Amino acid sequence: ASSSEARTVTLIPGDGIGPEISAAVVRIFDAAKVPIHWEERNVTPVQSPAGKWMIPHSAKCSMDKNKLGLKGPLKTPVAAGHPSMNLLLRKTFDLYANVRPCVSIAGYHTPFADVNLVTIRENTEGEYSGIEHVIVDGVVQSIKLITEGASRRVAEFAFEFARKNQRGTVTAVHKANIMRLSDGLFLKKCREVAENYKDVHFKEMYLDTVCLNMVQDPTQFDVLVMPNLYGDILSDLCAGLVGGLGVTPSGNIGANGLAIFESVHGTAPDIAGKDLANPTALLLSAVMMLRHTGLGQHATRIERACFDMISDGKARSQSVLTPARSRKLYNTILLEFLVHK
Amino acid sequence: ASSSEARTVTLIPGDGIGPEISAAVVRIFDAAKVPIHWEERNVTPVQSPAGKWMIPHSAKCSMDKNKLGLKGPLKTPVAAGHPSMNLLLRKTFDLYANVRPCVSIAGYHTPFADVNLVTIRENTEGEYSGIEHVIVDGVVQSIKLITEGASRRVAEFAFEFARKNQRGTVTAVHKANIMRLSDGLFLKKCREVAENYKDVHFKEMYLDTVCLNMVQDPTQFDVLVMPNLYGDILSDLCAGLVGGLGVTPSGNIGANGLAIFESVHGTAPDIAGKDLANPTALLLSAVMMLRHTGLGQHATRIERACFDMISDGKARSQSVLTPARSRKLYNTILLEFLVHK
Ligand SMILES: CC(C)[C@H](C(=O)O)[C@@H](O)C(=O)O
Ligand SMILES: CC(C)[C@H](C(=O)O)[C@@H](O)C(=O)O
Repeated sequence: ASSSEARTVTLIPGDGIGPEISAAVVRIFDAAKVPIHWEERNVTPVQSPAGKWMIPHSAKCSMDKNKLGLKGPLKTPVAAGHPSMNLLLRKTFDLYANVRPCVSIAGYHTPFADVNLVTIRENTEGEYSGIEHVIVDGVVQSIKLITEGASRRVAEFAFEFARKNQRGTVTAVHKANIMRLSDGLFLKKCREVAENYKDVHFKEMYLDTVCLNMVQDPTQFDVLVMPNLYGDILSDLCAGLVGGLGVTPSGNIGANGLAIFESVHGTAPDIAGKDLANPTALLLSAVMMLRHTGLGQHATRIERACFDMISDGKARSQSVLTPARSRKLYNTILLEFLVHK
Repeated sequence: ASSSEARTVTLIPGDGIGPEISAAVVRIFDAAKVPIHWEERNVTPVQSPAGKWMIPHSAKCSMDKNKLGLKGPLKTPVAAGHPSMNLLLRKTFDLYANVRPCVSIAGYHTPFADVNLVTIRENTEGEYSGIEHVIVDGVVQSIKLITEGASRRVAEFAFEFARKNQRGTVTAVHKANIMRLSDGLFLKKCREVAENYKDVHFKEMYLDTVCLNMVQDPTQFDVLVMPNLYGDILSDLCAGLVGGLGVTPSGNIGANGLAIFESVHGTAPDIAGKDLANPTALLLSAVMMLRHTGLGQHATRIERACFDMISDGKARSQSVLTPARSRKLYNTILLEFLVHK
């Protein structure tokens, strides 16, 4: 494809091992001749004169224009410093749905095979509203904010996702027995949306029950939709069941198709710069991105090569990011491409 | 022991299978000659003239006097009805620490052997404060309330528990990266209390990280202490790892030793009255109660008989409550007593 036909994607390499795993993905995409042009941007936040933390102008403009981003890990802010960049990105671009597929990978030995579920997390409000007060000394409150609009749109997203991907069931995960108004509102919106998707089965379950059942038999779950904090918890739990954050992709989706895909593991400063990091999670996130933007054939091809390589065992890493061999990993993948294309 | 020396315990049989599993425990204790006298009470809530839901007077008095209770499952209130009885009991008697040991049971096949951890959940505030508002139509807030006092006392309980039970590590579980003030306060109190327990190792971890690591290797955890909702989630998750709510005990501890022990599974109305229910969770809760009240020798004896019987396989139930055979179960246990005493 000539560069004029290529889709431009904002690339945020991130910190620690971010640049090297990003470079690995870029090279793999090159070798696979994916019609994508990368626009690299830094998102170290800047402060407005009024003290407000913001995404740097050039990163913001790039995302606004391209509507598609791929992001490596960002270091967690120190207590005194700026807010979490991950949160700021979600907020800035109103990325309201966090989608995390958890699929068993042949070659990774875990207690359960055949896991194939997707967590869809409301990504903008709930316990993450950031509103907290000290009432009196020693008495603090955090506000969990649930709105009709945000609940409805993430529910719609979940059902739409289920329908598009031929998935049979959407389960709303909640604690409406305790938070009757807030989780109650979330649940009500899920129920209403379910009415419009008669082809998708709807279930509701308590979060604690889901966690218990999940560790006993995760294969019973399909698409799960839930408020922000529950999604934070369940998505990590589920990642643990299939091999950890080093092998699970993630996508943050906003309005009008705007989306940022990212690996959700850490920056692993201890191995950064040593070409030891495993790019699988970022690569699979990039694969999600290809599907999202209509380049499904490229997605399938790269994904297959990646899974084949993992099950083959040559470039497998046992734990999240070590002992991995990124050079070998992507070299093997490159080879697969040369052989199979 | 003559009845004059016996400790009196308030027995709340509960709903559904509650009465039959309670009867099983009473018979086992009888056979084992445990010096306990039972005072049976009903806790179906009553309403004050002002509309406030309360524990019935006679149950309240019994608990105030005995300071020790054993409780079967209570049915969940319907939407329109009264509040959760479990919550009302915690509140009425200020049962501030929920203690749930999760220990692998020989004979129950689960992906992990050698799990041996205890979750300690703050039981009175947090997301369970019950304070919620509709701000405007379609915008709802729930308040998570964290206080210095409640955080400190549950942290102290956790460290005291670790010390008494020769457990090496207490891990505080939190999301202080997101809820900086509320979880921040909880964490601060844990850190302060840790200073007074130099013999116990102190760690802090994010809830999502704990969940991920828990499903990968639960044997790495020891005592975990956390705010209310996180405890609700983690305790069920951990129960799932060792066989489910049908085999895991629970104790709710208040000030001055006042405590209610309970099985945390449901009322299983489908099998109620058929003598099919498995009393293991309630029996192990009663065993916890014996330890709590200084009858440790009886506790050890009954617990051993129960575990022997399970690993022997005769009265094992595969899932939470079915297909169990309570008559066989406690008969087998009775036999063990006759043989071993
Ligand atoms: C980095 C942190 C703010 C974030 C969260 O809590 O949402 C992370 O755990 C995640 O799941 O993306
Ligand atoms: C019954 C329900 C109110 C309760 C809770 O959410 O705390 C239960 O899940 C528990 O863990 O005891």
